[in-house]
Order: sequence, then C-alpha cells, then structure tokens
Amino acid sequence: MSEAVSTLDGWWSLHLLYNVDWTSLKTLEESKKDHLIAELQSFLEREEEVHKNKEGSYSFYNVTGQKADIILWMLRPTIDELNKLELEFNKLGIRDYLIPAYSYVSVIEMSGYLAKESDEDPYENPYVQSRLYPEVPKSKYICFYPMDKKRDLDDNWYMLPMEERRRLMYDHGMIGRQYAGKVKQFITGSQGLDKYEWGVTLFSDDMLEFKNIIYEMRFDEASARYGIFGDFYVGVHLPADELSDFFK
Amino acid sequence: MSEAVSTLDGWWSLHLLYNVDWTSLKTLEESKKDHLIAELQSFLEREEEVHKNKEGSYSFYNVTGQKADIILWMLRPTIDELNKLELEFNKLGIRDYLIPAYSYVSVIEMSGYLAKESDEDPYENPYVQSRLYPEVPKSKYICFYPMDKKRDLDDNWYMLPMEERRRLMYDHGMIGRQYAGKVKQFITGSQGLDKYEWGVTLFSDDMLEFKNIIYEMRFDEASARYGIFGDFYVGVHLPADELSDFFK
Amino acid sequence: MSEAVSTLDGWWSLHLLYNVDWTSLKTLEESKKDHLIAELQSFLEREEEVHKNKEGSYSFYNVTGQKADIILWMLRPTIDELNKLELEFNKLGIRDYLIPAYSYVSVIEMSGYLAKESDEDPYENPYVQSRLYPEVPKSKYICFYPMDKKRDLDDNWYMLPMEERRRLMYDHGMIGRQYAGKVKQFITGSQGLDKYEWGVTLFSDDMLEFKNIIYEMRFDEASARYGIFGDFYVGVHLPADELSDFFK
Amino acid sequence: MSEAVSTLDGWWSLHLLYNVDWTSLKTLEESKKDHLIAELQSFLEREEEVHKNKEGSYSFYNVTGQKADIILWMLRPTIDELNKLELEFNKLGIRDYLIPAYSYVSVIEMSGYLAKESDEDPYENPYVQSRLYPEVPKSKYICFYPMDKKRDLDDNWYMLPMEERRRLMYDHGMIGRQYAGKVKQFITGSQGLDKYEWGVTLFSDDMLEFKNIIYEMRFDEASARYGIFGDFYVGVHLPADELSDFFK
Amino acid sequence: MSEAVSTLDGWWSLHLLYNVDWTSLKTLEESKKDHLIAELQSFLEREEEVHKNKEGSYSFYNVTGQKADIILWMLRPTIDELNKLELEFNKLGIRDYLIPAYSYVSVIEMSGYLAKESDEDPYENPYVQSRLYPEVPKSKYICFYPMDKKRDLDDNWYMLPMEERRRLMYDHGMIGRQYAGKVKQFITGSQGLDKYEWGVTLFSDDMLEFKNIIYEMRFDEASARYGIFGDFYVGVHLPADELSDFFK
Repeated sequence: MSEAVSTLDGWWSLHLLYNVDWTSLKTLEESKKDHLIAELQSFLEREEEVHKNKEGSYSFYNVTGQKADIILWMLRPTIDELNKLELEFNKLGIRDYLIPAYSYVSVIEMSGYLAKESDEDPYENPYVQSRLYPEVPKSKYICFYPMDKKRDLDDNWYMLPMEERRRLMYDHGMIGRQYAGKVKQFITGSQGLDKYEWGVTLFSDDMLEFKNIIYEMRFDEASARYGIFGDFYVGVHLPADELSDFFK
Repeated sequence: MSEAVSTLDGWWSLHLLYNVDWTSLKTLEESKKDHLIAELQSFLEREEEVHKNKEGSYSFYNVTGQKADIILWMLRPTIDELNKLELEFNKLGIRDYLIPAYSYVSVIEMSGYLAKESDEDPYENPYVQSRLYPEVPKSKYICFYPMDKKRDLDDNWYMLPMEERRRLMYDHGMIGRQYAGKVKQFITGSQGLDKYEWGVTLFSDDMLEFKNIIYEMRFDEASARYGIFGDFYVGVHLPADELSDFFK
Repeated sequence: MSEAVSTLDGWWSLHLLYNVDWTSLKTLEESKKDHLIAELQSFLEREEEVHKNKEGSYSFYNVTGQKADIILWMLRPTIDELNKLELEFNKLGIRDYLIPAYSYVSVIEMSGYLAKESDEDPYENPYVQSRLYPEVPKSKYICFYPMDKKRDLDDNWYMLPMEERRRLMYDHGMIGRQYAGKVKQFITGSQGLDKYEWGVTLFSDDMLEFKNIIYEMRFDEASARYGIFGDFYVGVHLPADELSDFFK
Repeated sequence: MSEAVSTLDGWWSLHLLYNVDWTSLKTLEESKKDHLIAELQSFLEREEEVHKNKEGSYSFYNVTGQKADIILWMLRPTIDELNKLELEFNKLGIRDYLIPAYSYVSVIEMSGYLAKESDEDPYENPYVQSRLYPEVPKSKYICFYPMDKKRDLDDNWYMLPMEERRRLMYDHGMIGRQYAGKVKQFITGSQGLDKYEWGVTLFSDDMLEFKNIIYEMRFDEASARYGIFGDFYVGVHLPADELSDFFK
Repeated sequence: MSEAVSTLDGWWSLHLLYNVDWTSLKTLEESKKDHLIAELQSFLEREEEVHKNKEGSYSFYNVTGQKADIILWMLRPTIDELNKLELEFNKLGIRDYLIPAYSYVSVIEMSGYLAKESDEDPYENPYVQSRLYPEVPKSKYICFYPMDKKRDLDDNWYMLPMEERRRLMYDHGMIGRQYAGKVKQFITGSQGLDKYEWGVTLFSDDMLEFKNIIYEMRFDEASARYGIFGDFYVGVHLPADELSDFFK
C-alpha cells in the first residue's frame, strides 16, 4: 500500500519573473513607452477583474536585488488559461524589454497530513474552498521560494512512516500558526510539473516577518533535516498606477 | 556474471526544446512570418505522414513557463534519420527565431525486469512491438523529464542484487498500472547517449494526473531511495493549424 | 518549544555588484562620460549625506578580479528605501555600462546566542544600537561573502541542542575578538530573503587580515563542521573623487 | 610508497565541440559560404594526410542534439602541435559561425593495472604502440564522455589497496572484451590537464552498442561504486565531402 | 586554542584568464590590430621590467582548449598594485577583443606544517624569501588549478588534529620532492579572498609531468580523502614577440 498522503488541489499557478532591460528601455521614445505601459496596465486590469470575480487571482511585485525586477503570479482554474496568459504576456510590447529570469508551474495544494476523517466531500467545505481558490492579498511585500523534501541516505522524507511525517508536519504547522495575521502563506505543489516539489508564496506588510518565520522553522525537524530550499525572491508591491514611475 | 538485466530497444528518440525569441519575431513582416509558419507546418505534416505510416512518430507541444516555449519529440527507426531531421529543422526559417533550450537523445526501451521467460523472440511479440514502436498520442498535455538511478554510498541501485531490483521495479510498476487509461508513459533509455540514464515522457488529458502519479511514486522505494530527477517540462498540445495564432 | 534563538534586527541591507562593460564605455564621448560620472558622484554624495545624518550607511569599492568590478553596499531603515535606491541606480546613465554580477538582500542582525539576560529592551541599549545601525567605515579594503550553516546527515547545525550551538558560537566569537581593531565585521541575516542564510561584510586596512581571520576560523568547529561558504568578493576603496580616473 | 599504478602515455589529445550559429550562417552569401567550406575541407584534408602518415589522427562528427553540432578530435605527438592546430582552427573563416560548446585536453593512456611484468620496454612493444599511437577509425558513430573515479567517504577509489583496484579493473576489462569488434574504445588521461580525470571516446557502426556497453558496465563495481560520469556526446560521421550539404 | 597552523605570506597574486573574440578581431583593420598588439607588448615589457627588478613577477601563456585562450598571472607586493594593473589591462585596446573567462585573487603562501622551530624571523631567511617573492620561470608550459580541503562528515580536514594534518602534509610533500627539477610549484592561499582555498600554479618544460605529479598525488591521503579540485587550465608559453602571430 502506498505511503503517500493524498492532497487536495485547487487553482493552477504560474510564477513569472523577469529582469528589466533598462539600457534598451531608456532608448525608447516617451510616447512609445507610454503605450507599452498602458498596454501592461490593461493586462493587469483584466487580472484584477478576474480576481474580483473570483475566477482566479494574481500578484504583481517589484523584486529587490538583481535576480529579477518583477514577479507576476497568476492563478486560474485550468493550466490552459495560464498557458494562454503567458503567451498573451509574451506578445505585450513591454515584453521586448523584459528578460526571463525564473518561472514556476504548480497547483495550489492542501496537504492531507492534518485532514480530519470525515464523510464530507472536502471540496464542498467552505474553508477548504477558501484555501484552494484563494483571494491573493495585496500586502506590501511578497516572498517566493521553491523547495524539496530531502532524500539523502538516513535523511529521507519519503522513506519515513506516514505517522512520523504526520507528526513532523503537525509540529511544522504549529509554528506557522503563530504567524497567523502576520504572514499569509500559499503552498503550491509541483511534483511532476517543475524542478522543485513545492513553491511557497508568502505575503506580509512587514518584510521582517518573512525572515522570522523562515528562521524559526529552520530549527523545526521537518525543515532542519528534510527541507531543501531553492532561491528566495522578495519584493515590494507594484500597483498598476505606479508602473509609469517604475518604468520611466 | 554481469548483474545487468537486458533491455529491449525500439525506435530512436530525440527531444528538442526551444524558447521563442519573441522580440525578434515581432519585428518580422507579416508575409515573411506567414512563410516561416507555413514552412514549419509543412515540416509537421511530413511528421504526421510518417506517424500515420507507422514509420515513426512525433509530438509538438507548447511548454508552460520560461524554461522553454516548444517541445518537439521525434521517434524514428534509426539515429541517422533523427540526426537528419534535426539538421532539417535547423535550416527552417522559423529556427532563426528559436533559441535552443534543452535536448535529449535516447531510444525507446522496455526494461527486462518484468519479462516472462519464453522461447519466443520478444521482438516478434505484438504487445512488445506496440511498446517499442509506439503511436504517440495527441493528448492535451505532455510531461517530459530525465532521470537517473542513484549511486551514493548505501543508496546504490547498481550494487543491489538483481532480485531486489526486480522486486522494487515490480512495486513501482504496480503504481503505474493504477494510472492506466489516465496517463500514457514512454520510457527512453539514454545510458551512453545523454546526461541522464532515462527520459520519461508522459501524456494525459488531465495535467493533474502528472502530479498525482509522480507524487505517489515518490514514496515508492525505487523512487524514494534511488530516483534522481532532472527538470520537469510540461506543456499543452499545439496542433499545426494553431501555429499561426501561436507565433503571431 | 522552538530551539531557535531570537535575533535582533537593524537596518536593511542591499549589496549590488556589477561588472563594467569596458568595451562599450570606451566608445562613449568624453563629455557624455563626464556626465555619467558626475551623475554617479551625485548619487554617492547623497549616500554620504544619509551616512552623516545616521539615517543609513553605504560603501563603494572596486572589486579585484573578474567576478565583479564594483560593489555598492547600502543600509537603510526600511526595505522600501533600498528598493527605491536600486530603481534609482538602475536609471543612472552609468548603469547602461554596468552588467549585474551579484546581489544580496538581507538585514543587519545580532545573534542572540551570547546575549545576557536582562529586563532592559535591548533595542534601547547604546551598544546594540551602534551594532544594528552602524556607521560603515571607509577602510581601504572590503570582503563580502554569503554563508549557510550545514544541514547534512550528522553535520546538522539546526538539529544541535541550543546549548551546544551557544558553546560553538562562543568559541567562534573568541577568535573574532582577537581581530578587534584589525577587522570590522558586519553580519546580515538573509533567511527567507536571499539564497544563503547570512552575508558577512568585513573591512580592514590590511587585506591580509581577511585571510588571517577566515583561515583561523575555518579550524573552529562552528565553521569546520557547519560552515558552507559562497563566493568571496574582495575590493579596494573607490572614493567618489577617483571615479573619473576609474572609468576613463 | 605510493599506491599509484604507473601508466603508459601516447599521443596528446584535444576534443573540440562547437555549435553552429545557423542564424548568422544563413545570412552569408553562397559564394562566401563555399569559400568557408572549402577552407574547412582543406583543414580536414591535412588532418587526413597526417592520419595516413601515422603522424597523428583525427575525427570529425556531427553531434546529435543541442549540446553541440560538431566534434573535432585531434591526436598528435606533442601538445604544442594541438595548441597550434586549435589556433589555426580559430582563424578559419567557418569559425566565425561556430560557438564553442565544450573542449577536452588529455593524452592517450594505457592503464598499468593489467600490465604483465617484463624486462621489455613497453613503448617498444608493437601492441602497446598500436594502442598509444592509434589510427582512429571512421566508424559511423562516435560517443565521447569525461569521467572521474569517486572520492566520497566509504566510496573512495584512491584509498583502495592496489590489489583491490586491480581486481575491479580486471572485471571491468572483461566486460569491455565482450564488445571487441563492436565498439572501439580510446582512453585519454587528463589528471592535471582538464576537469575530469579521463576522457572516453568510443566508435561503432551501431549506436545501440554504446548504450549496451555503458549500461552493462554500470553494474560493474568499478563503475557502480566508483564511476562519476560527465555529459555524453554522440554523433554521426561527417565526411569532408558532405560538409557542403551540412552547412548549406 | 586554535588548531590553525600559521602561514607565511608573500606577494599578492592575480590570475586573469580570457577568451579571444576571434570573430570580432578578424574584422579589425591590420593597422589597428598592430596598434593593439604593440600596446599589449608594451604592457608585458613593463611586467618584464618589474620581474627583472624583483619588484614582482608575471606569466603570459596561451591556454589550450576552449575554457580560455590566454592566462596572465601577476605577482606584486600589494593588492593595490594588482588592482591597478587589472584596471590598466581593462583599458588596453586588445581588451575589447578579450572575454573574461576566470580570475583568481590570492597571495603566495608557505604552509607552516613543515616549518622548523627557530628564533629567527622566517621572513629574513633567504630560502623563505625566494619562495615568498619568487621569480616565476618562463617554462614551456603552465598548469593552474584552484583547490579546497574537504569538510564532509568523516572526511573533514579542518577537524583533524594538527599532528595528523602535519603527517599527511609531510607525506604529500615527499611526493612533490620527487618532481624537483621537473615541475616548479607555486602555492597561493585564497581563504577569505576567493572561492577556493588555494590556487596551485605549476610550470614545466614537459607537460606530461603535470599529469604525472597530479596523478601520483591523488593516491596520497591528503589528496585522496581531503582534496577538492576546481578546473585545470594548461597552456603553452606565449612570448611577447609571438603575440603578432598569435592574434593575426
């Protein structure tokens, strides 16, 4: 019998990170620049419309440091929609001044480790629905990172008995719970979809809380022994009406 | 005596992944763009012809995310044909707007772990033939990833006794069997041919099934202790008659 | 109960490293070059103003070797200010002749391992304040490197009991103390913010002291067993009034 | 006393792999293209001349997949000659349309593990001479890969007693022997010369034999426990008189 | 008490490796090319002057293979001088046709493991002086590689007792001694200065001796268990009066 714990899966997720090619952008005439920015604003307005209609959600942040300049995160009921949105984004005029930096394909996931047994269809549960089809907040700050669970000799998450994994995830969750109201956390699963096994996207109005939660969790056995972390990307919210200031 | 289990080998396989250079492509005149697209469509029609004649097979998908924009997978009886097809593809006009992203050279392989003993030549067996010289489906979604078996101190697949490897592969196969009808799986061997030891190419009409099967298998000892996975590429079917919409 | 030791956090920190595109820069007219240099000098003068007002601090050094040509390190009370400064820097004319080489997002951190118990609010303590909101010196030389603590089977810092970590950090600190007056050390924490867990920025008037302190510490158990080091960047102070000589 | 087993060393070896810049090449006038191709053909004719005079040898193959398009392998009595040939190749007109992909510096090597004791100077032995100064065949296919012997905790080739290494190399050689007549194998040593410790260059008229021999050997303890493999490059013979078809 | 063994440090060291951009260089007019070459020759003549005056030393070699085309190694009493020389080199005309490939910042180092106890100031000892402020030979061949000592679970150099490290270094040195007269070896330390802990630069009139010494030493426990090696760069001496032939 498989030792896998089943997951609940919600909206599909696509993180797109780009660097701005400032050198080329500076050579562009102001009027053309205005046009590109207006076109991008219109793209983001359509995202906002979808978000308001609860047919998906999105984020748009200015990443700090050189690893990327912007991160666009989009959520939709199907991968087809995300695939089309990426193509649409590639055809925007501003895209000629953006250099792909990193991307992540995944799907919103609720782990089954802490699920209570019940006869109810979990997908009908309002709490579950709010987690699987979330309204992404417009907090001041974003933090995104991909991660794996380790499979290395004696430190092999996937060889642990289910009860042991459940206990570790419970302890892990207890730390997260202390950050309720301070950090909003979105887990997306990417096994079979992208390089790492999960993507973690955090939002907060205090960037120090990203450091606090990650630091505290690193001492937790689930992270300390079994966590493998990719790169961390943090950024500041970039509202559509500040795009002109940003690009010009 | 060698502990290697012999394999059956079928068609040669070449995965070619490219990013589209959208910036340059946008500067191209419409009529020239039409010409490039028609030329690519004609290339894919010849692939379709070969596929129908069962002299090979192929796939053409739009990859989601920035790691690649398109994946072309081609199968042929000889490596010479694939080598010529790659050269032909390099000389297409559209190729000037494609940036190589990843490629994989391998050969369709059936592992001998689960083979029954028999006096029959397995290459004459119709089931084996259908596996070695497959008709690749045009499912909605593709998933491609390369993989290795680990050789790390106590976790060394190649030092296990053959019976232990057979047992692990049997358990592994039992999970795969549950996905019959949901996921079509093609294994290509690449030892001595490319960086990883195997390429796995999956097809499904439900992308979530890729995540389900990979996630479930990761708890299986053959994957949990011995699997090393490269990057995962997923995409959406891109029929030849949608190429114009895609590139324009 | 979490085994994490709480930290004190001060100013936000952004390290930006660039290579100079000498080939393009040489083609630029002298008068335009003068303009770019003056603009950069004015940027650095504003940094100097902030530094004098103790509203932040900064460094500007010429990195030796090909990994980068310049390093700009900026400290500010909020990440928002650093984010804006990076944007401002990207819009300087000289930026068109700079190629991003590496960047690091973090926050000045004092580890709690050696803190004395007290009822006092540590943030009110003048010594703590001088460490958290430091005046970065203009020593002749800089050394910057990121680092992690190891989590590898039996060598797992985060699985050690707190008392053991405290003992190791105490011994580690004892070595550092011998370099008082020779090397000034700034620790910035980056868990949840960037790829490594800490950034270390050292200043000295004798570059050999960087080698001496790092070499001696490597035999210390905290580093020997648990330290993982990224790349090391060293450089020579580049005062604003030598920019013209540097770029021309 | 050193546990190293002495080796016999023959001709110096240089593998050069390039990708073709198809986009630029297509823009070149036919007459100029003819000129570049003729110049390359003349370079290869001189290689053929040297090969016939047994003053060296060479190979020229079309690599399958995107990792490279062509591989040029050259053997000479001195590194100086190879160094000059590389410079000469860099100055060919076609080189402006080739992008360096990978290179390898090494020297033909016969391991001493299986040497018989004898008073004879091994360099005078005709069999040894034929191995150290080989005539490289013009088989249909080439396979090239670099490799190391592992030095990882309990799996440390260089800490094994000589007799144990000798036994493992003997078993390893026994597998190779089964492929006599099917695969021709050339070992070049590169300790102190390039990144890996050995380069392996195989030739065959059946590409499947590369997979067969590598697959079978991977279960052999010398490979299973101690082998570290770089990337594998496979290709199809590209005779000088097909260069025009290839590049045009 | 620290287990570190103190070192003696001499001249500062900067290795600069570049690839030649042959494609661009070919488009340059002969007279301009002559000018660039003359300018580089004049740079090297000044290096030669410094070398003769024993105020520093240098090497200039043509690297074989694609990892680099030239290596310039410079030694000086201070890092400031090297920093200025690098800037000067960046402003040479030929630099527009050179692509940075690798660089290394370090300082000539004599390990203290084999030092005899004495009251004498070692820096006054003529033998020590000849080692710390060396005249770099103009041998036919160069070999350069960076290296680390391993810190991996049970294979941790920095956790060994000093006496054990001393014994291992003694055995290691005994092998080196056999190559006296055949290979000249220069060790530069780079802890706190660059990515690896040491750089090793070898010179010989027989390139095979690089392979011999590295191969033999790999079986020595100090290397076998504790050595981590970066890439190896080998090259052929390029005298200033052959620069014209090289670049044209």
